[in-house]
Amino acid sequence: MRCDRLWRGARIATLAPDRPGLGIIENGVIGVRDGRIVLVADQCSEVECQADETIACEGRWITPGLIDCHTHLVFGGDRAAEFEQRLAGVSYEAIARAGGGIVSTMKATRAASEEELVASALPRLDALIGEGVTTVEIKSGYGLSTAAEMKSLRAARALGEVRPVSVTTTFLGAHAMPPESMGDKDGYIDHLRRNMLPAIATAGLADAVDGFCEGIAFSPAQIERLFKAARDLGLPVKLHADQLSNLHGAALAASFGALSADHLEHTDAEGAVAMAQAGTVAVLLPGAFYFIRETKLPPVDLFRRHGVKLALATDCNPGTSPLTSLLLTMNMGATLFRLTVEECLAGVTREAARALGRLDEVGTIEVGKYCDLAIWDIERPAELVYRMGFNPLHARVWRGQ
Amino acid sequence: MRCDRLWRGARIATLAPDRPGLGIIENGVIGVRDGRIVLVADQCSEVECQADETIACEGRWITPGLIDCHTHLVFGGDRAAEFEQRLAGVSYEAIARAGGGIVSTMKATRAASEEELVASALPRLDALIGEGVTTVEIKSGYGLSTAAEMKSLRAARALGEVRPVSVTTTFLGAHAMPPESMGDKDGYIDHLRRNMLPAIATAGLADAVDGFCEGIAFSPAQIERLFKAARDLGLPVKLHADQLSNLHGAALAASFGALSADHLEHTDAEGAVAMAQAGTVAVLLPGAFYFIRETKLPPVDLFRRHGVKLALATDCNPGTSPLTSLLLTMNMGATLFRLTVEECLAGVTREAARALGRLDEVGTIEVGKYCDLAIWDIERPAELVYRMGFNPLHARVWRGQ
Ligand SMILES: [Zn+2]
Ligand SMILES: [Zn+2]
Repeated sequence: MRCDRLWRGARIATLAPDRPGLGIIENGVIGVRDGRIVLVADQCSEVECQADETIACEGRWITPGLIDCHTHLVFGGDRAAEFEQRLAGVSYEAIARAGGGIVSTMKATRAASEEELVASALPRLDALIGEGVTTVEIKSGYGLSTAAEMKSLRAARALGEVRPVSVTTTFLGAHAMPPESMGDKDGYIDHLRRNMLPAIATAGLADAVDGFCEGIAFSPAQIERLFKAARDLGLPVKLHADQLSNLHGAALAASFGALSADHLEHTDAEGAVAMAQAGTVAVLLPGAFYFIRETKLPPVDLFRRHGVKLALATDCNPGTSPLTSLLLTMNMGATLFRLTVEECLAGVTREAARALGRLDEVGTIEVGKYCDLAIWDIERPAELVYRMGFNPLHARVWRGQ
Repeated sequence: MRCDRLWRGARIATLAPDRPGLGIIENGVIGVRDGRIVLVADQCSEVECQADETIACEGRWITPGLIDCHTHLVFGGDRAAEFEQRLAGVSYEAIARAGGGIVSTMKATRAASEEELVASALPRLDALIGEGVTTVEIKSGYGLSTAAEMKSLRAARALGEVRPVSVTTTFLGAHAMPPESMGDKDGYIDHLRRNMLPAIATAGLADAVDGFCEGIAFSPAQIERLFKAARDLGLPVKLHADQLSNLHGAALAASFGALSADHLEHTDAEGAVAMAQAGTVAVLLPGAFYFIRETKLPPVDLFRRHGVKLALATDCNPGTSPLTSLLLTMNMGATLFRLTVEECLAGVTREAARALGRLDEVGTIEVGKYCDLAIWDIERPAELVYRMGFNPLHARVWRGQ
């Protein structure tokens, strides 16, 4: 067999589902050709492989490249000043009256050019990449007009052109109400169905459709109408569900065969069962839980009991989770939600890939998949979860390079 | 005036105590000669300064170099495996029976050479330095024998030789009980007073003496005897106080004029008043609070009301705070303890210097102090506190270079 590159002498956490636990190979070799993995094996086994380049890993650990499956990475402006005011005792209401909150991000996003959106998102993306991220999902949802949502999604796609990273895009027009809709939520949802969503689908700008199902956002009935329109267009759906209250968003998402339901602090057993049956992944977002000082924990045991797959993501956004570290996200998943090390690592690799509908291409180290790898200066995988504010990335490989 | 280097066009948060808030100069200039600040001024003022090198800061923010005033950076071994076991449901008792917990760190520290301790601490120190830290306190306390404590303190001093960073060392022999003392706490304290502490003081290895005052560690009476010995040797003291229960450790520390009392979740009004009167700094350690999922908050309002100075530190240690980011520490201080942005920034600069007894040399940007600076790619200081897992450091200056 001929390889472009060969990594030798590595401890590999393959995350392959047909192996137990992390799917560990203690003294392994990985070969790539044309960006795809063509070989994953034990060093000791009989391997005949001629490689243009061989890299000695000296016992370093290799995991699949990390996947951040829920981000709002593209937005204009900044909310640090608002954060400062809140700590100084200014109420949320006073900040909102002064034009703060999500409306300020919407205005800044509308005012920014596509190039400016790319430029402001790049440091955030680079922080993720610097920790071994090779695939990132990016949502729109701060434009809230056809032009500004399309601009945001084009900026997201452009980020995948200027950096060696795979970007999947999600249309989140149903994130919040634009002020010009004057509180007419049904009217805005109709506008999404009839105008925005078809335009975005036609332009091929969205890989999925998302919504925010909550009292302060959109009702289950409104989300259902949006999801039907997405289904008619052949787009998969996902949902911000049950974060602040139980509107049975998880079950609603599952009834549409959603890729994922996300947040889920208030999800009940019925929702967990529905997700398990539909294969809808539970994407937990401990950064938002931490940042807004939530105390209601997501029902992790319920998900485990019913066999719901668990993913973890940053939810990187300016209002409730200004977080650009999947390593810290894993620590929060373990510390705050009591996920195991294995659940955390699977949650930012295999299960994150599943949550994006891309498990056939990425998320594990298996023959045929893209060769996206993270190589770590660690002695055991648990270190990636245990430490806080420490980055032991040695090298990152995207599509074999 | 002649300068070696001059930074121009910077927004400077001087933290100078004679200026309000962060002591901001909007368009400032900083000059250094022989490692000391010789000029801090508004660009517009009449400044005549001939510099060998002039650096255009293009509006970037400059703060004092960050100071981590409470770390256990030097230790042998690793506790990631124990973390993994705990998450998998193994009890603390079972781990301790199997030789885990602090005893495992003690054994690994004793088994390591000084060079090995330096080598294993360097990645942790480099993580701090990479975020703009220019001064770091390092405690012993995992050796618990004269030889191993001295080795740890020599390793701490050596770290300050191999990296451009100021290290202050603290002798923490009264951290835990070594197994060979068979539970005789009074006997161990006597050993510290008669043998270990004098040997360490004679060798000039410790800048201060610390203890752990808690039911699971040492009693106030035992700490008092240790502190008297430190006073006799002319060494300042500090204390791990009132973390898990209120043994009135803060008041005890204050009665010895301690530099700082640290943790303080259970400190009462009497302790706060005593600290204010003694000028003892409250060093808050939100990383440990977060990592052990503590729910009792330190009495921040009490400290504010009585005028106790507040510092923040990582408490970097393998058991309860494997944290190597002062930026994340600031976010935790704000998010978990509701400190203001100004309190957080002062807490890792001016007040951290005060907690180390080094405010005359570092901690603010003022003429006469060491030129230790952190230069940031940010639009406002609040960004340093608001973001999580993001490092906007542009450059770091230690003693003018
Ligand atoms: Zn979100
Ligand atoms: Zn400590």
